[in-house]
Amino acid sequence: MLYPQEFDVIVVGGGHAGTEAALAAARMGCATLLLTHNIETLGQMSCNPSIGGIGKGHLVKEVDALGGAMAIATDEGGIQFRTLNSSKGPAVRATRAQADRVLYKAAIRRRLENQPNLWLFQQAVDDLMVEGDRVVGAVTQVGIRFRSRTVVLTAGTFLDGKIHVGLNNYSAGRAGDPPAVSLSARLKELKLPQGRLKTGTPPRLDGRTIDWSKCTEQPGDLDPVPVFSFMGSTAMHPRQISCWITHTNERTHEIIRSGFDRSPMFTGKIEGVGPRYCPSVEDKINRFADKDSHQIFLEPEGLTTHEVYPNGISTSLPFDIQYALVRSMPGLENAHILRPGYAIEYDYFDPRSLKNSFETQQIGGLFFAGQINGTTGYEEAAAQGLFAGLNAALQCRGEAAWLPSRDQAYLGVLVDDLVTQGVTEPYRMFTSRAEFRLQLREDNADMRLTDDGRRLGLVDDARWDAFSRKRDAVSRETERLKSTWVNPKLLSAEEGERVLGKAIEHEHNLFDLLRRPGVGYTSLVGMNGGAFISDTVSRETLGELAEPVIEQVEIAAKYSGYIDRQKAEVERAAHYEHLKLPADIDYLKVTSLSFEARQKLAKHRPETLGQASRISGITPASISLLLIYLKKGGYGGLASARATAETP
Amino acid sequence: MLYPQEFDVIVVGGGHAGTEAALAAARMGCATLLLTHNIETLGQMSCNPSIGGIGKGHLVKEVDALGGAMAIATDEGGIQFRTLNSSKGPAVRATRAQADRVLYKAAIRRRLENQPNLWLFQQAVDDLMVEGDRVVGAVTQVGIRFRSRTVVLTAGTFLDGKIHVGLNNYSAGRAGDPPAVSLSARLKELKLPQGRLKTGTPPRLDGRTIDWSKCTEQPGDLDPVPVFSFMGSTAMHPRQISCWITHTNERTHEIIRSGFDRSPMFTGKIEGVGPRYCPSVEDKINRFADKDSHQIFLEPEGLTTHEVYPNGISTSLPFDIQYALVRSMPGLENAHILRPGYAIEYDYFDPRSLKNSFETQQIGGLFFAGQINGTTGYEEAAAQGLFAGLNAALQCRGEAAWLPSRDQAYLGVLVDDLVTQGVTEPYRMFTSRAEFRLQLREDNADMRLTDDGRRLGLVDDARWDAFSRKRDAVSRETERLKSTWVNPKLLSAEEGERVLGKAIEHEHNLFDLLRRPGVGYTSLVGMNGGAFISDTVSRETLGELAEPVIEQVEIAAKYSGYIDRQKAEVERAAHYEHLKLPADIDYLKVTSLSFEARQKLAKHRPETLGQASRISGITPASISLLLIYLKKGGYGGLASARATAETP
Repeated sequence: MLYPQEFDVIVVGGGHAGTEAALAAARMGCATLLLTHNIETLGQMSCNPSIGGIGKGHLVKEVDALGGAMAIATDEGGIQFRTLNSSKGPAVRATRAQADRVLYKAAIRRRLENQPNLWLFQQAVDDLMVEGDRVVGAVTQVGIRFRSRTVVLTAGTFLDGKIHVGLNNYSAGRAGDPPAVSLSARLKELKLPQGRLKTGTPPRLDGRTIDWSKCTEQPGDLDPVPVFSFMGSTAMHPRQISCWITHTNERTHEIIRSGFDRSPMFTGKIEGVGPRYCPSVEDKINRFADKDSHQIFLEPEGLTTHEVYPNGISTSLPFDIQYALVRSMPGLENAHILRPGYAIEYDYFDPRSLKNSFETQQIGGLFFAGQINGTTGYEEAAAQGLFAGLNAALQCRGEAAWLPSRDQAYLGVLVDDLVTQGVTEPYRMFTSRAEFRLQLREDNADMRLTDDGRRLGLVDDARWDAFSRKRDAVSRETERLKSTWVNPKLLSAEEGERVLGKAIEHEHNLFDLLRRPGVGYTSLVGMNGGAFISDTVSRETLGELAEPVIEQVEIAAKYSGYIDRQKAEVERAAHYEHLKLPADIDYLKVTSLSFEARQKLAKHRPETLGQASRISGITPASISLLLIYLKKGGYGGLASARATAETP
Repeated sequence: MLYPQEFDVIVVGGGHAGTEAALAAARMGCATLLLTHNIETLGQMSCNPSIGGIGKGHLVKEVDALGGAMAIATDEGGIQFRTLNSSKGPAVRATRAQADRVLYKAAIRRRLENQPNLWLFQQAVDDLMVEGDRVVGAVTQVGIRFRSRTVVLTAGTFLDGKIHVGLNNYSAGRAGDPPAVSLSARLKELKLPQGRLKTGTPPRLDGRTIDWSKCTEQPGDLDPVPVFSFMGSTAMHPRQISCWITHTNERTHEIIRSGFDRSPMFTGKIEGVGPRYCPSVEDKINRFADKDSHQIFLEPEGLTTHEVYPNGISTSLPFDIQYALVRSMPGLENAHILRPGYAIEYDYFDPRSLKNSFETQQIGGLFFAGQINGTTGYEEAAAQGLFAGLNAALQCRGEAAWLPSRDQAYLGVLVDDLVTQGVTEPYRMFTSRAEFRLQLREDNADMRLTDDGRRLGLVDDARWDAFSRKRDAVSRETERLKSTWVNPKLLSAEEGERVLGKAIEHEHNLFDLLRRPGVGYTSLVGMNGGAFISDTVSRETLGELAEPVIEQVEIAAKYSGYIDRQKAEVERAAHYEHLKLPADIDYLKVTSLSFEARQKLAKHRPETLGQASRISGITPASISLLLIYLKKGGYGGLASARATAETP
């Protein structure tokens, strides 16, 4: 049957990409239908029970700044929060949370069920409706035809999914879920450029059988507890608990090696390439043969379950090897495995065949988001889902796509990387992928994106009000600091030394003083008995916004110099686009580069720096380091190369 | 691989049968492994969000009396409780609760995860290990071989499951779940007598799109709120909410009839027979063509979802018919369907090939429970699961099976009916199936079974203590009433009239007085200003047990006469086993029988009353009614028939 109602946007898939896509399109006022093979699994965390981390946390905050669900759902379901790199600069600081799977899923489901303009429907999708070169809807397993103006496909690992455990394998979309075989076949008929990737997950353990006394406790940050969403608060958080750490040892590694001959990866059973940055434990043992131990994080799966996720031993080795390797580790001698680890192979589509908006070039109105584009990670999926959903909505409105630039958002980096470079292995986000990373911070994701989000219709009134108050307060306070002058006559030498490190000799404004290393906002405005404190930046006036406002003012003062310098560097790097690389360079000796970057450069031997920068896995940071090496290394050709570069 | 640990009992399947089976075997101290294709779906309510009802509530209380999980999980997840037939006699009174699916599942999962001696493992089972004529374990999808002394198979609708919506169909174990195809094929190789059944479920609705003002509210019993478990209390219950009622109409029925030509049932696409007592709406419209309206109960699926279960419109009609029929009903004019209704066909095995213990006759150590035995209903499944699990455990101990008799428990009726009569359609429990129903009451399930349960090792100390206190108090109080004499000289005529309806003329004991119609325990002991009140039956002494104790004492007094008479009747019925039925009887005219009983008797035309009683669906009650009809109807042959009956 043809379903009577016609939709603007159909989203196929209910994972992290699909739910953000559906919520975004619906927030923008589009009649949106989310088709999922099972309503019960909406928002399910298929792999690790955690959200965020370096690069990934940045994406989550950006999704949040655009009104998305992932950050606030994590605040509702998070049972351990940490700020990673908290001692480093704000650009690489990142939030990471362990989530209770049940609470997280419930938080996502509640949002989906309560979102106006969004309809849910449970049924696997077997086909797309295509007329000419446009998609016009989707067809379910029992032949229900839903018509729509656009379709966002977020099929995750389901397209022709195949699970491997040792040399055994079977068709599945995820452990316990059926695969999407018909849809995969139909997409192949549409002749979109397709390939296979694989990902994996570790065995899960019964916490009752773990000897915790042999593990190291890893508590979260408790004072203060980090918060994920700009609209979140610690009051939303459920009870907070610890993670634990154990480690592999030589015996573990022997056991793992003893299974190599029955590994589907090493015997060629698996064709798809796996994620380099989230490798299986056999991959780690194989690639880093000299390391005799790896840390394994024992992450609780929730407050109401004993199930434990051993982060670090993702594997598709035969189950007997899994059993033995788990039990070779301290504390896990008697650990009962609840679910075997496995690898899953699935179809992806070359993202270079996508437009910048994630619409496929071949079929108008058809958007792809998430693992189908060759990525890995919940956060990458959520960001893409939101992006594809909002661009599908814009297309329905007849408006141009929204395309964040690489200096505006990690989302811009992610999209640009995928569309221009494609993938050779599952892509995950790193701060090193962003050449403008000093300005792409978690703390200012709202400042970078919420204005756009509001204009697009993604941001509701409550968020907009809070954001506007914050932005106005930052701006007012920055202006005040810039226009408040401190006269040496009015600041005693002792007070100058106490707060500023030394007495000032001529007049400075507060903003300039704040730039100085070691000078903090609070001590600065507290000088002379609080003479420079402003009521407008108090907790009384701003409530929970007070601290974020001060943080923004402080970072603006301290980092504006670095950010300017970064911009110049990026421009200089662009300038070197056509710089010819020496033919005789031995990349393996460029020790400032990561081992991976050296390997890739040695393998590809690019002719120009521009080509080098487009190799998947070669980050802008690697390019900077390579440039420095070339300059230092006395490669005589550098000047002439530059001349070549300047005359295209 | 062969899994290193050997188990006593392996349970395959994590539904209502599997979870009770695993919990029971583990409570009895057996090393028990629960194998499920998906840990996330343990305890899932696949169909209606409710537990209990007439006959079914009785089974739940029996499972509870034996330490099972279903009743207490319902107390933890129940959002509406009602006592059905509350104005009728205690034998047919029954508890029914709507459950929040999420809370119910969580309650079951928590019990499973925290049960000593129970291990969970996620992986579909593809094969059984059989040596000679005994099962010795199970093999999972990736070839993990788990050895065990017994196996309890509770595969529900998964064995070669096939979902039908209109003329479309596909393989599945349940909407969203893969089927068990390999295991089905293997069981066929084992040549157990196998057949196909079908069951169905209605489309689910989005409550946000229902106009509740056009529906009739159906609140639960709020004063007092019924409690399911003997160990439960209202304090465990979450927030209580209402159900709603709408109804089909002539237009609905027209729409349904217009889909008959595309109905998989009526066009022969479905081979399996469906449940007569939980028919699809098309079946109802077809069979009861003269009815122009059916009630449809709109049952909330939980406190945190808008999803609504429209009880009464289970259907496998094409989706366009589902869509139109839903919208033809008051309040549902704009209702959005979240999940389509469907029928599912699956393998079952003839329960007549089971031993009384539910062990298969063909393969030692292999037990079957739940839908695989041809039943329908969560409660029937749970009861069978507990029964098969405990008997598997007893076999491991080398002890004889536990076989409750038909006058001890509905569980005895269920097992005896299945094993001796088999099924021609999915079997569900009714009070009319129990010839001893006056003594098989919900209120005394503990009195009938907890002693056995304790002896078997199913009942923990807390339950045993509470039960013992209750039983002792009932016994003490009954003795006290029997030995407390009321002398007419000490009871004024006014007081006698007030409490007993009339003054007494000679001495009576309290127990005899309590037998009188209209005389309640509380008013009786309150005579003469409370002269007969006993401290030992007060809330101070017994706490929450006080009311159940008084209830038992009262029922014992009032019903002992009826129960004795019932026993005599049952003996008399047995006596008529060989009574020849007249060849010319027109069963369709025996209007005291149900329409179904008339149909079945007319179809089968049994030769003797004994044969009639063994026709599936012909209840002991029907036999009594038939006997009365024969006597009244002046069938001359009755006396001689009886004579024939008496001389075998």
